[in-house]
Amino acid sequence: MTAAGPPTDEERLARAALTRVLEPGDTIGGRWLRELGPVEVLRGLGEEEPLPGVSVRRWEGLRARAAELRPERDLTAARQVGARFVCPGDTEWPTPLDDLGDGRPIGLWVRGRPSLRMWALRSVAVVGSRACTEYGAHMAAALGAGLAERGWIVVSGGAYGVDGAAHRGALGAGGATVAVLACGVDRPYPRGHVRLIGRIAEQGLVVGELPPGDHPTPSRFILRNRVIAALTRGTVVVEAAYRSGALATARSARELGRFTMGVPGPVTSGLSAGVHELLRGEGVLVTDAAEVVELVGNMGELAPERRGPVLPRDLLDPGAARVLAALPARGRATARVVAVGSGTTEDDAVGRLYELQSMGFVERHSDGWQLTRQTNAAVFPGGGES
Amino acid sequence: MTAAGPPTDEERLARAALTRVLEPGDTIGGRWLRELGPVEVLRGLGEEEPLPGVSVRRWEGLRARAAELRPERDLTAARQVGARFVCPGDTEWPTPLDDLGDGRPIGLWVRGRPSLRMWALRSVAVVGSRACTEYGAHMAAALGAGLAERGWIVVSGGAYGVDGAAHRGALGAGGATVAVLACGVDRPYPRGHVRLIGRIAEQGLVVGELPPGDHPTPSRFILRNRVIAALTRGTVVVEAAYRSGALATARSARELGRFTMGVPGPVTSGLSAGVHELLRGEGVLVTDAAEVVELVGNMGELAPERRGPVLPRDLLDPGAARVLAALPARGRATARVVAVGSGTTEDDAVGRLYELQSMGFVERHSDGWQLTRQTNAAVFPGGGES
Repeated sequence: MTAAGPPTDEERLARAALTRVLEPGDTIGGRWLRELGPVEVLRGLGEEEPLPGVSVRRWEGLRARAAELRPERDLTAARQVGARFVCPGDTEWPTPLDDLGDGRPIGLWVRGRPSLRMWALRSVAVVGSRACTEYGAHMAAALGAGLAERGWIVVSGGAYGVDGAAHRGALGAGGATVAVLACGVDRPYPRGHVRLIGRIAEQGLVVGELPPGDHPTPSRFILRNRVIAALTRGTVVVEAAYRSGALATARSARELGRFTMGVPGPVTSGLSAGVHELLRGEGVLVTDAAEVVELVGNMGELAPERRGPVLPRDLLDPGAARVLAALPARGRATARVVAVGSGTTEDDAVGRLYELQSMGFVERHSDGWQLTRQTNAAVFPGGGES
Repeated sequence: MTAAGPPTDEERLARAALTRVLEPGDTIGGRWLRELGPVEVLRGLGEEEPLPGVSVRRWEGLRARAAELRPERDLTAARQVGARFVCPGDTEWPTPLDDLGDGRPIGLWVRGRPSLRMWALRSVAVVGSRACTEYGAHMAAALGAGLAERGWIVVSGGAYGVDGAAHRGALGAGGATVAVLACGVDRPYPRGHVRLIGRIAEQGLVVGELPPGDHPTPSRFILRNRVIAALTRGTVVVEAAYRSGALATARSARELGRFTMGVPGPVTSGLSAGVHELLRGEGVLVTDAAEVVELVGNMGELAPERRGPVLPRDLLDPGAARVLAALPARGRATARVVAVGSGTTEDDAVGRLYELQSMGFVERHSDGWQLTRQTNAAVFPGGGES
C-alpha cells in the first residue's frame, strides 16, 4: 500500500515515468499503484515476472515502454512550456478525480499558473460535437461566457466545434477555462487550435494525462472524457449525435454522481438527437448559464463561498494577497484594474481572482470583481461594505 | 342529487338549455347541477331568489340569459349541421371529463358520426402556438400523421398554427382527429379554418361546450383547454411562448394526472421558450410520435386492446359489424378498401375502424388496418392468422 500524504520525490518521478507506460484509465495499473505504490510498480516493470492481472504478451509491451523511460527529460520538457506534473497527494491535486477509483489518472501534466484544485471546485464541463452547427457554436460560446461571468470555470476538450466555442466564450468574457487534452500538453491537438490552446495556457490551464510529446489516439480521446467528467461539478452537452464522445462524457458524469445537462435544439437536427436522448433520460434541460449555475451551484461543498473565506487572509501566498489588496472596499473592479493595482499581468490577476473566489474571498459579477460581504466585514470592520 | 344512469329527455333538454346560460367551467353552476340536477337548476333560474353562491347582480345576468332560452331550436340547429348533444350519463359521454369535477362540461355539442367516448379512449392532444414557425408546423404535422398511423386520435383546438397543422397531419394520414372549439360547432372559428373544420366534421369530430351560433371569447378559449386536457391521455406542446394557452392546457393535463410532453426546439427561439420551461418541470421531452405512444400507451386502461375485444362481436351495431367483416383474414387493408368492401364511405370506414380499435377488434399500422390476433383467432379458429 502506498503511503498517504505528499508524494516523495522518488514517487513523483515514478508516477511521471508511468504516464508514459500505462494508458489513461488502465484500472489494472491503477490497482498496482494502489497496492504497491508507484516506485514498486516501476521497479516491477524491470522484471520478467508479470505483475498480477496481465498476460505475458501485454507485460512484454509494457516492459518495452518502460525500458525507454527518461522521466527527468519529460519533466524538463514540461518545464520548458511552463508545465508541471501534479499527482495524488499534492496540494494541487483535484481530489474529485479520486472518484475514478483505480481509473484515476496516475498524475496530470498541467500547463498554466492557477491552481487546478482551486479551479476545479467551481467548474462545469461544456462539451459537444466537433462538427457542430452555427446554433451549437452560438450556444456553446454563450454558455462559456455566461458561466465565466458568474464566476464558474469552463472545462472542455480543446476540440473543434463546441469545445472551442465554449473555451473562446469563457476567454472572451475575461473568464477562466481549462482544456483537458488527450495528448501531451506541449503538443496541442488539433493543430488548428494551437493558438487557442496557447491562449488557454496563458489565461487558464491546459492539462492532460499524457507526457510531453505524446500524441492522441481514438481510445485516448474517449478516456480523456472521464477526466473532464470527474473534474467538474457537472457536464453540459451542446449538440451531440447518437453515440458521440460528448454523450460518453455525460454518461461518465452521471456514473460519477455529477450533474448531466443538455441544451435542446431542433428535433430535425441530427446533431441534437443525442442531446434529446440524454434529456429523455436523466439529463436536465438547460437553456442558459443561469440555469446551469442554479443546478450545479446548489451543492453543500460550495458552502464556504457563502460563509466567507475558510483560510485566514495572512496565509495567502504573496501574489494572491496583492491581488486581494487591489480590490476596492466598495463596488467592483475589472481584472485589468486589479492587475494594475497589484502590479501583475491581467492573465495572472484573472487566475488569482478565480482562486480567491473558490476560497470565498471574492466574487465575480458580469461587470467585475468585488470582495464578498464576509471578507469586506473582516477587512473594513464597521462600515466598509458597499 | 341528480339520478345516476341515462338522462331523461327532460334532463337532456335542460342541460342543452343550460349550455347557453352557464359559462364553460362555471364550478358554482356545476355544483348546482350536482346537487339539484339540471331540471331543478333550470327551474330555479325562473325564480328571483338566487341559488347559493352567486351575487344578486350575477344572478340577474344568468336569469336574463335564461329568459331567452329555446333549447329545442338549438337542438334543431345542431341537427341541421349533423351535430348532437351528448351529456353525462349518455353512453357516448367520455367519462374522463368527469375528472374535471364541478368544472366538467354541462354537455358537449358533437358534430361528426364516430363515438366521442370510443375515440377519446385512445387520444392525445397536440397543441401549441397560433403564430408558430415552419419548424413548429412541421413537427405538429409529423406528430399528427405519426399518431394517426399508430392508431391514435389527435385532439386539438382547430386554431391557426400548431393546432391546424396537427389536425391536417392526422387527416392526411387517413387518421382520426377531434377539434374542440370555444364556440358553437356550427360556427367554426377561426373563419380561415371553416373548410378544415368542415373536413374534420366529415372524417372526425368537432366538439364544443357552447350551443349553436355562440361565439368565442378570450375566457372561452382558455376554458376550452381544460376539455382538451381532460379528454385525452396526454398533451404534447409544440412551440409555445411563455404564458401561452398551450402551456395552460399542459398545466391542466398535469393537474388531471395526464401525461404532459413537449417538443424541444432551438433555445434561440422565443416560441420554444415555453416548451423548454415545461420540460424543465414535469414535462417529458418527445421528438416523435413513437415516443408519445410509448408514454401514453403504457396505461392499464388500454389493456383490452392487448387482451382482445371486450364486446362480443354480435353486439356490434350493423355498420361496425359490416366494416369488421370487410377486413381480410390475413394481412392489412386500407380504409378505402374496407369502405368499398363494407359498402360505406371512406370517412365512415375510418371512423368505424378507430372505434373498433378502441374496442380491441382491429389495429392500425402505417400501411393499413388488420384484425387483432385475438379477433382473428375467434373468427378463423385453427389457422386464419397471418
